[in-house]
Amino acid sequence: MFPINTWYVAARSEEIPSDRPLGRRICNHPMALFRNSAGQVAAVEDFCPHRGAPLSLGKVEGDTLVCGYHGLAMGCDGKTVSMPCQRTRGFPAIRSFPIHEAHGFVWVWPGDAAKADVALVPQFEWLGNPLFGYGGGLYDIACDYRLMVDNLMDLTHETYVHSTSIGQKEIDEVPCQTRVDGDHVITERYMEGIEAPPFWKMALRMNGLPDDQPVDRWQICHFTPPSHIMIEVGVALQGHGGYQAPDEFKAASWVVDFITPETDTSIHYFWGMARKFKPQDAELTAQIREGQGKIFGEDQEMLERQQKNLLANPERKLLMLNIDTGGVQSRKVIDRVIAAENAVTA
Amino acid sequence: MFPINTWYVAARSEEIPSDRPLGRRICNHPMALFRNSAGQVAAVEDFCPHRGAPLSLGKVEGDTLVCGYHGLAMGCDGKTVSMPCQRTRGFPAIRSFPIHEAHGFVWVWPGDAAKADVALVPQFEWLGNPLFGYGGGLYDIACDYRLMVDNLMDLTHETYVHSTSIGQKEIDEVPCQTRVDGDHVITERYMEGIEAPPFWKMALRMNGLPDDQPVDRWQICHFTPPSHIMIEVGVALQGHGGYQAPDEFKAASWVVDFITPETDTSIHYFWGMARKFKPQDAELTAQIREGQGKIFGEDQEMLERQQKNLLANPERKLLMLNIDTGGVQSRKVIDRVIAAENAVTA
Amino acid sequence: MFPINTWYVAARSEEIPSDRPLGRRICNHPMALFRNSAGQVAAVEDFCPHRGAPLSLGKVEGDTLVCGYHGLAMGCDGKTVSMPCQRTRGFPAIRSFPIHEAHGFVWVWPGDAAKADVALVPQFEWLGNPLFGYGGGLYDIACDYRLMVDNLMDLTHETYVHSTSIGQKEIDEVPCQTRVDGDHVITERYMEGIEAPPFWKMALRMNGLPDDQPVDRWQICHFTPPSHIMIEVGVALQGHGGYQAPDEFKAASWVVDFITPETDTSIHYFWGMARKFKPQDAELTAQIREGQGKIFGEDQEMLERQQKNLLANPERKLLMLNIDTGGVQSRKVIDRVIAAENAVTA
Repeated sequence: MFPINTWYVAARSEEIPSDRPLGRRICNHPMALFRNSAGQVAAVEDFCPHRGAPLSLGKVEGDTLVCGYHGLAMGCDGKTVSMPCQRTRGFPAIRSFPIHEAHGFVWVWPGDAAKADVALVPQFEWLGNPLFGYGGGLYDIACDYRLMVDNLMDLTHETYVHSTSIGQKEIDEVPCQTRVDGDHVITERYMEGIEAPPFWKMALRMNGLPDDQPVDRWQICHFTPPSHIMIEVGVALQGHGGYQAPDEFKAASWVVDFITPETDTSIHYFWGMARKFKPQDAELTAQIREGQGKIFGEDQEMLERQQKNLLANPERKLLMLNIDTGGVQSRKVIDRVIAAENAVTA
Repeated sequence: MFPINTWYVAARSEEIPSDRPLGRRICNHPMALFRNSAGQVAAVEDFCPHRGAPLSLGKVEGDTLVCGYHGLAMGCDGKTVSMPCQRTRGFPAIRSFPIHEAHGFVWVWPGDAAKADVALVPQFEWLGNPLFGYGGGLYDIACDYRLMVDNLMDLTHETYVHSTSIGQKEIDEVPCQTRVDGDHVITERYMEGIEAPPFWKMALRMNGLPDDQPVDRWQICHFTPPSHIMIEVGVALQGHGGYQAPDEFKAASWVVDFITPETDTSIHYFWGMARKFKPQDAELTAQIREGQGKIFGEDQEMLERQQKNLLANPERKLLMLNIDTGGVQSRKVIDRVIAAENAVTA
Repeated sequence: MFPINTWYVAARSEEIPSDRPLGRRICNHPMALFRNSAGQVAAVEDFCPHRGAPLSLGKVEGDTLVCGYHGLAMGCDGKTVSMPCQRTRGFPAIRSFPIHEAHGFVWVWPGDAAKADVALVPQFEWLGNPLFGYGGGLYDIACDYRLMVDNLMDLTHETYVHSTSIGQKEIDEVPCQTRVDGDHVITERYMEGIEAPPFWKMALRMNGLPDDQPVDRWQICHFTPPSHIMIEVGVALQGHGGYQAPDEFKAASWVVDFITPETDTSIHYFWGMARKFKPQDAELTAQIREGQGKIFGEDQEMLERQQKNLLANPERKLLMLNIDTGGVQSRKVIDRVIAAENAVTA
């Protein structure tokens, strides 16, 4: 159960070269994504109307994706353009999906194409902003997308899952606050006068700041539907205003989480970090990306085993504690969005 | 859905040594194949009547297959011959399957044994013919056997799947013709005055012919039920009569395809090449076999992914273009054979 | 179908360290086993009542198992002890399972905890007895636990499955006798004046005895429910009384088999050997353990393939020969125990 009349991240731009398609399942739809001769991305069903071969095994020629089995040339709109020695006018069309590419991400609209509106593609402060340096990656995880929403809207798990990098006891000890503003859910936690954990010590050093002084640390998780979670994170040297401190006293970033359902129980998890310091430093980007990749990989086993436990015990009710409020409220927003979609359909 | 009162290739002779059985599933029947003391192959259910152990884990002793669990000695006819310290007369029999071995192939009749007729084992010009050199192999592929029939009765796929070896644009450009003669379906294509693709240049050189001259090339696919496809392929130096050219101006072969259903959606695919030049050259046989093995391996991913696509979309109708006529007509023959089997049974 | 109001071996003691839990599925129940601060083992459902995470990914702190996701501290009784910043009194409890640890084995009672009685934990002569040296291991095998009971209560399979180590033709040739004493099933075989097979030649040498003289050999299999099989095995130099021979003329051991159902079609198989010679010789223990591990690994493929055959052919009846009597009688005991459990429940 996920919203479908909405934009999801389908791929990072670099995953789709000019000559080859990318096969990816989004919201239970196997798709072949490819670029036309102008570089624009299209997405069509990964099913050749000739004999059912997967188009994602083909290659790009001009504005078409040529099937790797018998050479049917598929257009960006799901209509066959040509096939050697064949008249293709009567060929059945396959589905195509609205696509929008911006700032390194390829967005797809898996639902009713007539409703797709580029104005609805989410905007974020850091996207395409030269003040920010961005690095990220993709993990495929076998869990319901809402388990990842829960995970990211309750960062107490850092203390346990990421104990050697970003976790610290104080996260557990300082209560978080959750508020809801329409479809926007915010969970925030502010820790004052603490020792920075290893990841943030590294960030302080990279930013030219001492790593042996008490800091104020913040985590502000922003959920917006269908399943985008942007987290303001950072530390400031104590006594300079914490979250409000001037840039020269802090290391601050957006943790970026685009969660795209692959199936009902699996996701494409696009993670990254947009930092507001040394944005042009490619070496630093690579270093942070590697560190974040390791940390975010630590969640996978937990989420997949949790998913199995829940599937095996469908009758069990989970607890909803104050730390879970962010996830609970986000799921309420998701349920509302799905209900609205269904109401329109009915 | 496959014919069962018919002969399929169960194994290449070399796969069944004298001392050990071969376990193989044919048409959904797990079988243990083994040789008696005279070297004759027998096939029995892979199920020991004692405790259900797989007989294919046993070993051959005299004219029996001795179960590797508790020593029951199974005869070639599915009747227990002996077991240490036991009277075996009342033991239930297991099925045995008619077998015929000839010219390096072991044929099995998975249906009604009473109808098995060795006279129905197919004969081919090249089988056991010293004018031909033969090499081949076996691939297990997770697809319905009819997808492989389609594949082999429409060679336009060579242009795409095998573009670096036997494919060339001209295959797409020259229409093929299909005709049906009873249960025999023939699809043929003749290309004139073209450049030979890499595989055929190699064959010309091996045959002592120049590889830099225009050639005529032919492909004549012969389907006979249940799923044997023999393809006459070759090139002749232009101007010598093409397919009809004398042997000294051409390199010609039979592509051999015996497709044996393992289950409803998997096959044992026995492929090979019987060439009509330098038949005794073992090194050439090995070289061609290696090249063909690489080429024929290129189909596997496409066929398995096509199978998955079709299973996931059972309601979709596939196109039947002129290039598909060979496969379409072959499937009609298959349907007729199956219907005839069912009519007799009913 | 297995008894549940009974003790099974859940683990060898060494598998559960003091700081980490062990995740193991027993009789279809996923469990997390861990030690409290006094070293006592507890077993709780592998399901955190907070969000369903597997507790077996957590770590031990004091007398609790701390969930590796959000820090819930689970007590040995399945009740939550604490969680950072939470009042946990109202948290739902999870199941805990009675545990008893003795002489290197951790026993679990997967059924009704109210019926668990430590007095019912089986006692064996060799357990905790300094006259015996013990070594063993664990194999996970994908078969119904009763197939392993059959295997061990009919040692004629040694001749075939273990032909190079403990098998020999005489096992087949000498009939075995089975008797039933309440819930205790005994199958025994005595072979006189035979050549010792390789494993026993090694044991004779290790025991300071010649390995080139005729021996008397015995196998006495003892089944007790639910699925414990202890086998007296040994050889004595011929002419000294065989099984009754004084210790200085023989090499004798208990083969230890604790079979714990994991699911309906898989087991945790705890195997070992308790030998009555050189009990303190650690090097000998290691050597025997390695040899036994190789031999007992030979059964795995046979049992797993037999299981698949039986699942695919549920309608087939298996034979029950005299050699199968041990297994047949053991299954009757098992059926009786299960029926008694159900009668009490109903």
